[in-house]
Amino acid sequence: MLTIYSEEHRYQDGKAELIDGQLLPPFEMPRRAEMVLERVRAVGLGDILAPQDFGLAPLEAVHDARYLAFLAAAWGDWVKSGREHDALPLNWQIRGMRALEPESIDGKLSYFSFDAGTPIMSGTWRAAQASANVALTGAARVKEGARGVFSLCRPPGHHAAEDYYGGYCFLNNAAIAAQWLRDHGAAKVALLDIDYHHGNGTQSIFYDRPDVFFASLHGHPKQEFPFFLGYEDETGEGSGEGANANFPLEWGTGFERWFGALQEAARRIRTFGAEALVISLGVDTYKDDPISHFTLDSDDYLQIGRTIAGLGLPTLFVMEGGYAVEEIGVNAVNVLTGFEEAS
Amino acid sequence: MLTIYSEEHRYQDGKAELIDGQLLPPFEMPRRAEMVLERVRAVGLGDILAPQDFGLAPLEAVHDARYLAFLAAAWGDWVKSGREHDALPLNWQIRGMRALEPESIDGKLSYFSFDAGTPIMSGTWRAAQASANVALTGAARVKEGARGVFSLCRPPGHHAAEDYYGGYCFLNNAAIAAQWLRDHGAAKVALLDIDYHHGNGTQSIFYDRPDVFFASLHGHPKQEFPFFLGYEDETGEGSGEGANANFPLEWGTGFERWFGALQEAARRIRTFGAEALVISLGVDTYKDDPISHFTLDSDDYLQIGRTIAGLGLPTLFVMEGGYAVEEIGVNAVNVLTGFEEAS
Repeated sequence: MLTIYSEEHRYQDGKAELIDGQLLPPFEMPRRAEMVLERVRAVGLGDILAPQDFGLAPLEAVHDARYLAFLAAAWGDWVKSGREHDALPLNWQIRGMRALEPESIDGKLSYFSFDAGTPIMSGTWRAAQASANVALTGAARVKEGARGVFSLCRPPGHHAAEDYYGGYCFLNNAAIAAQWLRDHGAAKVALLDIDYHHGNGTQSIFYDRPDVFFASLHGHPKQEFPFFLGYEDETGEGSGEGANANFPLEWGTGFERWFGALQEAARRIRTFGAEALVISLGVDTYKDDPISHFTLDSDDYLQIGRTIAGLGLPTLFVMEGGYAVEEIGVNAVNVLTGFEEAS
Repeated sequence: MLTIYSEEHRYQDGKAELIDGQLLPPFEMPRRAEMVLERVRAVGLGDILAPQDFGLAPLEAVHDARYLAFLAAAWGDWVKSGREHDALPLNWQIRGMRALEPESIDGKLSYFSFDAGTPIMSGTWRAAQASANVALTGAARVKEGARGVFSLCRPPGHHAAEDYYGGYCFLNNAAIAAQWLRDHGAAKVALLDIDYHHGNGTQSIFYDRPDVFFASLHGHPKQEFPFFLGYEDETGEGSGEGANANFPLEWGTGFERWFGALQEAARRIRTFGAEALVISLGVDTYKDDPISHFTLDSDDYLQIGRTIAGLGLPTLFVMEGGYAVEEIGVNAVNVLTGFEEAS
């Protein structure tokens, strides 16, 4: 299987995120991608290719233009206001508050984000664009006929919505790739999100769309970040009704129960009739993940890959979360080798 | 003038708040109230009285019951989940997300807050209740006929809404006092908020109410925290239409322009025909305030007090913000002595 990878992910290297009431070194760190790349090489998965530059148009097909302008300017505006450390927001536009974009940089950070765990620094925009190009380059190979491609994206993307960032995500790489496949010949695309956290950004981007099916297996929002999306009764709206399927699972969920939900998601994807499949590949479902509460083991990821292969669709794997850094390479690549075995 | 004060404010003594992208010692600290008390004594303003306990009913008249239950249980739940440092939220329920209360303590902290600058610790609930009782005890004296009473509240209150905390505020002391006055004979009550920051919580609590007029002078939300409320076009809704008046002022505003807005707010309060007045008294409009951008000087606060006295209403002063700690006593008490001179 071909892997797409860019070293530019290293430009996103935060000093701190707010978690557990403390500013700690971010769990989402450059070493994550490097460990996965190392494992891709160790098992001889296939060629490793640098991304092409697709420009802004495919980002604009998914994200709000004002949001993209904000991301491009944020660090410069922050520095102009006299700060040099990583930029974090002050407060957030919750229920009852108005959705108006402020003029000050602190206001913009607050408006365009939903958490305090996603620092913006000098290289954020460059790293986020590179990550989107990694996804797009993989999508182009899938369009050209590849059975499966691995886009080793970093920073991740599935928490980023049309006009906000959070959960370590700025640009929604998987959504950008899915939309690009739609715009380049695929009549219907399915997105399957197996990251531990709900793909709230991806869901919200396609929530009213009948042509992109979104399924997510994740920690139940009543217990787990991002808390305010990911319930089972979110089934899409308008002409997208029925094209969204959430499988919230409680803390302590093991592989048997998780796999039952995966099979149900796969059944729904078959019924939908997609022509291409995008996988949001997070491996924070792993038993020793430091911020998660499922109990999957490394070998389980082989079976996940085989099950995805069973759908028989051209498949793009887009890297998302996974914070057990020593095991992230084995776990992520196990999904890919399981897929290759069964393809 | 009588001052109501409780030492229990000291139970709110945060280690850190997220501001400017860093966790810093909170600007909202116990010494603020102690400096004001010291000045009250130094000028011989009048007697200093401890608050009575009004119980939960006056809090329930303003705040959501689930929110109060959360505040009462939050620290215990946080400790049960294995943490011992100040509790801060993870993320927030912004536009497009669902307003559902999660079950986990991290989810509840996220749901019931709008910023990461308001730590919850072991004494938070106790301090917040004491602060509300300070406001209520002052309100009772106003009802009994006092011309002016000073409730030296801490923690402050005006950012706290029906069901969320933030901006150092947990219980909306001024709103609780105003509602108590309404429930004890005053047909109409006016709230005037002269803190540097918009009193978003107070506004939202009374936004659909014709019997409580709210006027606020503050840093323009396009530039300043809390960003997502406080615009001029927010004039109330339903039967409360016309009973809300915002005076947003840009960074760099000096006393002349600020005082013009105060006179207009006073004119509106006269037209409204209130029987009692509650002042949200913040002095972060001061030129050397470390987190604000107006340029008022200490003597200006005397004139503010005289102007408030000119309204001729029984008046409760409720302490809110002000972070230039060395000058907070002089500035706050200048408002009170100006009021007394002109009463």
